[in-house]
Amino acid sequence: MSTGAAHQIPGEIVPASRLVGKVSALMKAEPGDFRTSQVDLLDVRFEGIVGDEHSGLTRKSGGREPWYPRGTEMRNERQLSIVCADELSGIAEDLAIDRLEATWIGANIILEGFANLSMLPPRSLLFFDGGLVLKIDGQNAPCRVAGGAIAAHFPDRDADQLALDFVKAAKRRRGLVAWVEKPGSIAQGAGVKAHLPEQWIYR
Amino acid sequence: MSTGAAHQIPGEIVPASRLVGKVSALMKAEPGDFRTSQVDLLDVRFEGIVGDEHSGLTRKSGGREPWYPRGTEMRNERQLSIVCADELSGIAEDLAIDRLEATWIGANIILEGFANLSMLPPRSLLFFDGGLVLKIDGQNAPCRVAGGAIAAHFPDRDADQLALDFVKAAKRRRGLVAWVEKPGSIAQGAGVKAHLPEQWIYR
Repeated sequence: MSTGAAHQIPGEIVPASRLVGKVSALMKAEPGDFRTSQVDLLDVRFEGIVGDEHSGLTRKSGGREPWYPRGTEMRNERQLSIVCADELSGIAEDLAIDRLEATWIGANIILEGFANLSMLPPRSLLFFDGGLVLKIDGQNAPCRVAGGAIAAHFPDRDADQLALDFVKAAKRRRGLVAWVEKPGSIAQGAGVKAHLPEQWIYR
Repeated sequence: MSTGAAHQIPGEIVPASRLVGKVSALMKAEPGDFRTSQVDLLDVRFEGIVGDEHSGLTRKSGGREPWYPRGTEMRNERQLSIVCADELSGIAEDLAIDRLEATWIGANIILEGFANLSMLPPRSLLFFDGGLVLKIDGQNAPCRVAGGAIAAHFPDRDADQLALDFVKAAKRRRGLVAWVEKPGSIAQGAGVKAHLPEQWIYR
């Protein structure tokens, strides 16, 4: 006897309303250095994390925007960098290094509970316990500067090669960049709920 | 003899670098009214269109954000409304009305040259001649307020029903909302080039 279930897509379909996770670490960058250090709490305003290197309603363009003269003032859609441990472990494995610390590559938030965090689409919202809401701009394209910061921790390896390999290995696994939709504070351990844009929700 | 061409996907693949169009009309809303009036030029800053109803780095939340108490201050990702004539004609046809003016539903820019404009994905950039760059937040979800503004032009029709029908007919055809990545001025007739996010580009 045929049942509707036979026509279902194999595997569990997780409704967007059940995409929930947790903050496993928070980090902040001092002005002048993109690398971050762990903190217990982040105070986040419309400008971004208070006192962070990447704070600002606008920023200067760089190599990611080859269509602008370097240093052009543009809206800052890269206020926060968000990563997940599973993706960083996968990159480390492919690079044959024993670990890849989120602080080395300037992450501000490590989230747990989201499989393939980097695949959350642009326009997704992240609601944090305590009221902060971030809007996902999109995947953070891995660059050689971050790759070089990783290489600095593995002096036995060819630094240029490792930096270059990072760019390839980290594609679609280097997490997301986001900007502040609604200010708030977040503490380590806070719950997070993701809201996918209507256009991409499976019904 | 087999050639590579035999394995190509049917239909023309248009590289993202060839997604080009033109501004066919510019419009502005006076504060207090979402409907727009045609203008020759738009002066656009980080806040949005100078003097426009939807200008602002932040805005108050409304019915589109049921997860916030109404009136919550949030980042304004809806600074400009962009539509295309083909999609508006399609909606008008489905509603059995002779026309749907972009000004009635508060559009700021009518673009021509983009088929299915509303399907440009979130994070796309629009480069306008003269230097303005807009970043696409995403599809503008049609609402009954805009539907009611349309109904006002067709007094012979049931206004509530027409407003409701608009919400359905305009889904994925009501254009896009965008915010300012780089300020500039635009004049009617200006050329526009779209840049799709790397993640969605066919290679």
